[in-house]
Amino acid sequence: MTDSCVLCRASNESLIWQNEQVRVINANEPDYPCYTRIIWQQHVKEMTDLPAADQIAFMRYVFCVESIQRHLLSPDKINLAQFGNMVPHLHWHIIPRFRQDRHFPGSTWGNPRFTDNEAPGEWHKHLAEMNRLKPAYHQALALALAKI
Amino acid sequence: MTDSCVLCRASNESLIWQNEQVRVINANEPDYPCYTRIIWQQHVKEMTDLPAADQIAFMRYVFCVESIQRHLLSPDKINLAQFGNMVPHLHWHIIPRFRQDRHFPGSTWGNPRFTDNEAPGEWHKHLAEMNRLKPAYHQALALALAKI
Repeated sequence: MTDSCVLCRASNESLIWQNEQVRVINANEPDYPCYTRIIWQQHVKEMTDLPAADQIAFMRYVFCVESIQRHLLSPDKINLAQFGNMVPHLHWHIIPRFRQDRHFPGSTWGNPRFTDNEAPGEWHKHLAEMNRLKPAYHQALALALAKI
Repeated sequence: MTDSCVLCRASNESLIWQNEQVRVINANEPDYPCYTRIIWQQHVKEMTDLPAADQIAFMRYVFCVESIQRHLLSPDKINLAQFGNMVPHLHWHIIPRFRQDRHFPGSTWGNPRFTDNEAPGEWHKHLAEMNRLKPAYHQALALALAKI
C-alpha cells in the first residue's frame, strides 16, 4: 500500500463484489451505466509484476465480467483496457459498447460524437435501457464472480 | 475467415513473429515505434468466444510482449487494450508509454498534447531512442515468443 495511491484505499467507489484479490466496481460514468472496473487489491503496477497464476486469476475475473455483460446487456462489442498512466495501480476497464453510445465506434477515451444537446433519441432510449438493466447486471455479476 | 474483415488477410503488416494461433506485428504508428499488436489468426470477435485454454494462451503472448518491452525499452507504463469496435476480429494493443510521449499521461486514443511544431526537444530525443531500439526489441521479442 502506498499513501499517495488513490486506488490503495477505496473511496467513493460503487462496490459490486470483492474478495481478497480484487474488487469489482461500477465506474460511475453517467454515459456508460454498466461500465465496470476490476481493481487488484494490492498495489501492483504491471500485469507482469504479478506471478503467472495471479495474471491468469485476474484475467479470469475480467472474462467473467465480459461474459455477464454479453449475456445480460447484448453489447455490440466489449472493450477491455489496462492503462494506469495516471494511477499506476493495476485496474482493468470492461466496457460494454453499443452502436448508439456516445463514442461508438471510437474509443471511450476519444472525443464524443455528440453533446447532450445534439444527442439523438436512440441514445436517450439506449441510456434508459442500460440504467434499467444495471441492478440485474450487478446482481448476476456478483453471483458469477463468487462462483469462480 | 470473412471476406470483409481486414484482419483476416494480412495486408501491409510489419510482421515480427507468427505461429498458427497469432501474428505479432509492429503497429506502424510513427509516434510509437515499438507499439505492438497481436492478432488472433482466426476470425473471432470476443475473448469469451475463445475456449478458456485459448484465452490464457492469448494473454500469455500479450504478457510476453509486455515483459520484453519492459526489459528492452524501460517504459514508464505499459498500456494494454482490446477494442475492435471498427474491426471486430480479436487483436490486442501493447503500447509502451513514456512520460515524454505525445499523449502521456492520457490514452493514445485521446487528443495529443502537442503538434509537430510544438514538440519539445525531449520528445524528439525519446523518439530517436525508440527508433534506435526497435530492431533489437523485435529480435528479442521474436526469440521470447518462440519459447512460449
